[in-house]
Amino acid sequence: MKIVVIGATGTIGKAVVENLQDRHEVIKVGKSGGDYQVDIADETSIRTLFETIGEFDALVSATGDLAFAPLTEMTSEQWDMGLRSKLMGQINLVRHGLKYVRDRGSFTLTSGILSIDPILWGAAATTVNGALERFAVAAAIEAPRGVRINVVSPTVLTESWDKYGSFFPGETPVDAAKVAKAFQKSIEGAQTGKVIYLRG
Amino acid sequence: MKIVVIGATGTIGKAVVENLQDRHEVIKVGKSGGDYQVDIADETSIRTLFETIGEFDALVSATGDLAFAPLTEMTSEQWDMGLRSKLMGQINLVRHGLKYVRDRGSFTLTSGILSIDPILWGAAATTVNGALERFAVAAAIEAPRGVRINVVSPTVLTESWDKYGSFFPGETPVDAAKVAKAFQKSIEGAQTGKVIYLRG
Ligand SMILES: NC(=O)c1ccc[n+]([C@@H]2O[C@H](COP(=O)([O-])OP(=O)(O)OC[C@H]3O[C@@H](n4cnc5c(N)ncnc54)[C@H](OP(=O)(O)O)[C@@H]3O)[C@@H](O)[C@H]2O)c1
Ligand SMILES: NC(=O)c1ccc[n+]([C@@H]2O[C@H](COP(=O)([O-])OP(=O)(O)OC[C@H]3O[C@@H](n4cnc5c(N)ncnc54)[C@H](OP(=O)(O)O)[C@@H]3O)[C@@H](O)[C@H]2O)c1
Repeated sequence: MKIVVIGATGTIGKAVVENLQDRHEVIKVGKSGGDYQVDIADETSIRTLFETIGEFDALVSATGDLAFAPLTEMTSEQWDMGLRSKLMGQINLVRHGLKYVRDRGSFTLTSGILSIDPILWGAAATTVNGALERFAVAAAIEAPRGVRINVVSPTVLTESWDKYGSFFPGETPVDAAKVAKAFQKSIEGAQTGKVIYLRG
Repeated sequence: MKIVVIGATGTIGKAVVENLQDRHEVIKVGKSGGDYQVDIADETSIRTLFETIGEFDALVSATGDLAFAPLTEMTSEQWDMGLRSKLMGQINLVRHGLKYVRDRGSFTLTSGILSIDPILWGAAATTVNGALERFAVAAAIEAPRGVRINVVSPTVLTESWDKYGSFFPGETPVDAAKVAKAFQKSIEGAQTGKVIYLRG
């Protein structure tokens, strides 16, 4: 399969590429790194990417920014960033990618366990991750030509524990290689409209 | 209690006012009607409303626009409308209202059953309603001074069946008076971080 990985140079993206690259043609996309560049917060940039890459069988999105801050201190700009980047960025990859994905192809997005398991400072994360997970379920019943849409929702990665662990008291992290298998399951399997939750 | 009802002139809002008005001081807010006016899609308008009304014990939001269209035809403007109005409009009522709500007061927002039960044309509705429901769960664990946050998630109202029923094959509508009781439960009860789903 020809598989486009957005966020291929990131912690999750690298593990996904590693999992897929021996069996598939993998197109690596980053914001500044990778074979191709895109800014998912910018629809024009997304359109240009698809015009350049052309048809594909599967798209992985392992990217998207959002802000962490106390509920009473999170600014309008911080809320807006999560909606424009992680939420609409990924939704727009699906909306515009639908014209380029082959029959029975797939989209696999990334949310995060905060959708169902909130923490302090995480209101925007829970909102955005929850929105993405519900989007996939709704979009799956409308996707044309047998195209499938799933979301991978991991807890903190072992590889990111130093960065985020202190926000997640009592959490057990999950290895990137295990998270990558969830993307493999979505791409090489046949399910659609699923949220794959990953705990450590 | 002093209770602010945003969307008080609407189908749900009128039933909520009817339920509450004999036991409480109810402040009716609409976009053009009501005792006071606000445009929830405009943060300045929300701030002005709270400055005018001052402290309150409970806020009900029974408003918020979003678009219905096929997944492959929904425009960026239609997606944006749902995010600005129904999603961030209601989140911003909580964010700015937190400065005016009394200790142990409450916010009760409105989502809709499409969050968990998608229909054709409903991808933005499922996304926005799901986001609101997850927001309430996350915000509830951070709300200061015992303030509570819940969401009411009704199916189509009996009173709105002529308008929306054809989008919901096989659905049984729910009466506005029953929906209003869910708001009463949220306001006069003690639960927080709850999504109250309402079926017919
Ligand atoms: N890491 C975790 O523990 C964890 C857990 C749960 C969920 N998640 C979610 O998983 C996603 C990826 O996380 P990560 O930790 O793997 O991220 P990361 O290591 O920071 O990598 C981000 C990747 O996305 C690319 N990127 C950044 N901004 C972009 C933009 N605007 N448009 C397109 N690409 C962009 C980066 O490209 P460049 O390298 O070129 O800048 C990089 O490839 C995020 O949505 C995150 O919330 C992460
Ligand atoms: N009706 C249903 O079957 C149903 C089912 C599930 C969920 N819902 C959700 O419940 C909410 C209310 O629905 P409804 O059917 O009761 O609505 P509705 O009858 O159309 O009434 C809308 C109310 O909101 C006010 N309003 C409109 N735009 C506003 C804005 N930008 N800022 C502040 N107020 C505004 C209106 O004021 P004016 O009268 O002054 O214009 C009116 O009071 C919506 O979010 C809807 O999606 C409805």
